[in-house]
Amino acid sequence: MTTDERSEPGHDSLSDATQSKKVSTKWRGYLDATLGFRNHWNPVGYGHEIAEGAFVAVTALDEPILLTRVDGEVRAIQDRCAHRGARFSAQPLCFRKGTVSCWYHGWTYDLADGRLSDVLTSPGSPVIGRVRVPTYPVVEAQGLVFVYVGDGDPPALAHDVPPGFLDEDTHCLGIRRTVRSNWRIGVENGFDTTHIFMHRNSALIKGNNIALPLGFVPTDRGAVQVHGEGWPKGVVDNLSENYVPVFEASLQGVPVWTSELRGDEKRVAGQISVWLPGVLKVDPFPDPSLIQYEFYVPISATEHEYFQVLQRKVTSEQDIETFEKEFDETWRDLGLHSFNDDDVWAREELEEFYRDGDGWSNERLFPPDMCIVEWRRLASAHGRGTQPPFSARR
Amino acid sequence: MTTDERSEPGHDSLSDATQSKKVSTKWRGYLDATLGFRNHWNPVGYGHEIAEGAFVAVTALDEPILLTRVDGEVRAIQDRCAHRGARFSAQPLCFRKGTVSCWYHGWTYDLADGRLSDVLTSPGSPVIGRVRVPTYPVVEAQGLVFVYVGDGDPPALAHDVPPGFLDEDTHCLGIRRTVRSNWRIGVENGFDTTHIFMHRNSALIKGNNIALPLGFVPTDRGAVQVHGEGWPKGVVDNLSENYVPVFEASLQGVPVWTSELRGDEKRVAGQISVWLPGVLKVDPFPDPSLIQYEFYVPISATEHEYFQVLQRKVTSEQDIETFEKEFDETWRDLGLHSFNDDDVWAREELEEFYRDGDGWSNERLFPPDMCIVEWRRLASAHGRGTQPPFSARR
Amino acid sequence: MTTDERSEPGHDSLSDATQSKKVSTKWRGYLDATLGFRNHWNPVGYGHEIAEGAFVAVTALDEPILLTRVDGEVRAIQDRCAHRGARFSAQPLCFRKGTVSCWYHGWTYDLADGRLSDVLTSPGSPVIGRVRVPTYPVVEAQGLVFVYVGDGDPPALAHDVPPGFLDEDTHCLGIRRTVRSNWRIGVENGFDTTHIFMHRNSALIKGNNIALPLGFVPTDRGAVQVHGEGWPKGVVDNLSENYVPVFEASLQGVPVWTSELRGDEKRVAGQISVWLPGVLKVDPFPDPSLIQYEFYVPISATEHEYFQVLQRKVTSEQDIETFEKEFDETWRDLGLHSFNDDDVWAREELEEFYRDGDGWSNERLFPPDMCIVEWRRLASAHGRGTQPPFSARR
Repeated sequence: MTTDERSEPGHDSLSDATQSKKVSTKWRGYLDATLGFRNHWNPVGYGHEIAEGAFVAVTALDEPILLTRVDGEVRAIQDRCAHRGARFSAQPLCFRKGTVSCWYHGWTYDLADGRLSDVLTSPGSPVIGRVRVPTYPVVEAQGLVFVYVGDGDPPALAHDVPPGFLDEDTHCLGIRRTVRSNWRIGVENGFDTTHIFMHRNSALIKGNNIALPLGFVPTDRGAVQVHGEGWPKGVVDNLSENYVPVFEASLQGVPVWTSELRGDEKRVAGQISVWLPGVLKVDPFPDPSLIQYEFYVPISATEHEYFQVLQRKVTSEQDIETFEKEFDETWRDLGLHSFNDDDVWAREELEEFYRDGDGWSNERLFPPDMCIVEWRRLASAHGRGTQPPFSARR
Repeated sequence: MTTDERSEPGHDSLSDATQSKKVSTKWRGYLDATLGFRNHWNPVGYGHEIAEGAFVAVTALDEPILLTRVDGEVRAIQDRCAHRGARFSAQPLCFRKGTVSCWYHGWTYDLADGRLSDVLTSPGSPVIGRVRVPTYPVVEAQGLVFVYVGDGDPPALAHDVPPGFLDEDTHCLGIRRTVRSNWRIGVENGFDTTHIFMHRNSALIKGNNIALPLGFVPTDRGAVQVHGEGWPKGVVDNLSENYVPVFEASLQGVPVWTSELRGDEKRVAGQISVWLPGVLKVDPFPDPSLIQYEFYVPISATEHEYFQVLQRKVTSEQDIETFEKEFDETWRDLGLHSFNDDDVWAREELEEFYRDGDGWSNERLFPPDMCIVEWRRLASAHGRGTQPPFSARR
Repeated sequence: MTTDERSEPGHDSLSDATQSKKVSTKWRGYLDATLGFRNHWNPVGYGHEIAEGAFVAVTALDEPILLTRVDGEVRAIQDRCAHRGARFSAQPLCFRKGTVSCWYHGWTYDLADGRLSDVLTSPGSPVIGRVRVPTYPVVEAQGLVFVYVGDGDPPALAHDVPPGFLDEDTHCLGIRRTVRSNWRIGVENGFDTTHIFMHRNSALIKGNNIALPLGFVPTDRGAVQVHGEGWPKGVVDNLSENYVPVFEASLQGVPVWTSELRGDEKRVAGQISVWLPGVLKVDPFPDPSLIQYEFYVPISATEHEYFQVLQRKVTSEQDIETFEKEFDETWRDLGLHSFNDDDVWAREELEEFYRDGDGWSNERLFPPDMCIVEWRRLASAHGRGTQPPFSARR
């Protein structure tokens, strides 16, 4: 598709970025993770969505999962009866607390361990106690419900969320929605330094009086820090330190766009980081008083669930109430929607190229994409396992 | 997907039912018959749908078929012009009784033998008499139009319908509709003893004061009789004789559901049977005065035409009129719709698991499914031929 | 699907036409050209659709193309940013005349040569000048915008349009629309002599008092002339000279249709021809004063853009105005729509058979199809290159 001339020698990361066809083997594990990384925690919903005794069906990493709440605790079981594969959620039945019964033949499972405890249509059946449907470890934190899709014992949740996310004396509020792109397009859109060009007319800029450049010129490779030891593992990009922000755009030396800056703008997005299994942290954003987290949870090869969470330090119930009021009045619409709706649109636009056009081989990266390159390498090296298609796992 | 522990030794059929992965080779022919069994009779419509001279297009076993009526007799011809593959039915033309002309170039075929008899656009063309489009043997019986999709001479219709269906002094009334599941999901749903659990709240139960248990506990393997000699061939399950009906459901010994029985309920469904190529008979149902037949005719790999037919003994025109009135006022809505709509829903729910999830390998049967196991074996052993995809047959 | 008996010996073309399975290797190149022939000119729109500075996205031969007009001249560039594959057209940006900028990261290309001239988000980036997006040669003629999808220098436009199309002292008016069939079904429908059967009730016949037979009986092989030397290359069928027109249709000798002819009908369609890469000329049509051209431009394997153009000799501005008025009042609706809508319908009907049913192997041609046979051979021998799928070309 493109004419590619020799890139400059010397700058290692820059050359990588401009020769993506050759370096793609360096992030093979990431390319294989079409359905995400197995053996990690991922959010699947907000706690308030799952009332006591209610059933909620979600799909994460291609696995159908049924959520419910029993005595205050969220339980997660694979949403497939072992008998004939019916989804419990098609008509969820609970005849006794802590169980789910299949609507088709009354096979009844204990939600604690997934074991078949009774068959309503055939008491005393020899299959009772001999069949099990997989269940998933669940943790609730910061208003979110996290599920562990993987094998063996799960790690601590703190290993799979950005530093600071679980901090005490903070409060989180957010939304979620389904985006029609692979989850990796989501992560890369969020972490991408120069995509802010597309936000140049966002209502958020004037609405919250923030300074948002059109782009960045990297000045130093040290801008991108790889945290590959311990957990969580991630890549940190200190935008405010190692880049020259671009507030005026020129073509052939002639200015064609100028940001109107008065000098009193709020500073945001000083540091952007991304963490395994695929979580963004923008600190601060969309206001100096807030941190924005984004989880891009794989649903299928072509869809991800987009969790947008705002975090603020709070020291009292009053602080929480104030935050909730602000969230409802300002941040949800001006930030999570108005601003990020553009990102959702961009991801859905890119999906076709990366899916049908073999974009991973045909893209042509450039130096500001070095943060993305580092993320792909980190994920390839440290993702705990490639999630196989659900149908292949039985 | 499931943890499968050792099943009990001894009980042969029970072990089969609980170890489906191992026994699937025993019904290989059935698994191959995604598009149904070739060389059998199947209904494709009701006689009253095909008026003299009218054209009706249907698809059976993946084959496009054009039906019409000539001098009272139904004719069936493949719905494809031999010339460029146009479907006659896109704009059916008849310039002379007993023929169909293609709308594109006027190729005209004799419906009796499918031979190209004239070309309206090119009189005397050398192709006349040298090209033939396949035709299908047709028989009308009990208000239904049966077509033979197969090779060679067809057997008697009586070989491919349940015993009693063609009995004199009976009258049949029914409906048909398209269900979005493979035909085998349809057969197995109908023949399945314990799926009645899902009907426990059906309006039919109180509406017609019938006794319908939640399920059954098999007491004896003799309950299922295989009729593998002569024709028709089928599997008969005598529910009223060899099962303990379940009218009360318990979880861990605690009752959670009780059927309200007063003792004066009508008895139905004493015997359920299924016959090649895939026809259900429920005797009696949904009333002691009626027998219900169900034909699950393959359309494509993912759809079947569902024929629901009620039969009653009649000895006079008056009996027929009474039956027709009852059918219109009661049985169509309360039985064929209200009750069986649940079955349609169940089949469409199961389709994804059996299609994409390799359900035939991943299902986990249990003892009451032994009737299904016997049906699969019978069909594998005696189905007269696997129907190939239409495109592969030319 | 059909019974095929031996065709007559001797008549070579006739045997071909009745033994398509055997001769298909004679038009292998044509069968391979699912996405059309590369290295030819094809129309992609009308000049009036592309205003100065406006952006219009089209797809031709599976390639996404962005059109715009700069200082009066139409420019065409591949509609994919080299960076991450975003379509410029999703949100076209022009910050400086003669360039297009990508909405995602501000990569900016010179439309003259496709070279990356600036990156708005990262001034001075080393990728500037080192990346190029393909551009396409463009010519405007007779109100149409032609684009060359191919390699190397394009031939003269006159090589890829029917003789007479570029004649001075003529004026062209037309419409375009997307048809859901492969482009070859389009060409063959237009060039097909006996398909006029389907137009027998067209409003155009009485509306313009023209004589249109039901079909034709070929009398002489000389009717079809192959122009395989020089360019353009095409096949010419002199309908008025070497066929016996059929105005009365019979079945088994009994008349079933008679065209009402009064003797004063206008004569049209005396000569029909088709030219590489796939352009029809009907001379005259739909009126003795007009010639109709049809371009069937491949979009994807299953869609083509259908350009219908009427040409008339003109000697003054007044003639053009008269033509425009007639076109608006009569020819657009009565000819290009009412009459040709039937052809669009026929092509979409045939698509399934040729796509899924392997129609190219299963069709059964007959003598009047010899014009189609000659076209397939010519195209196979002289098409300048098979267009590969877009995704495979990068």
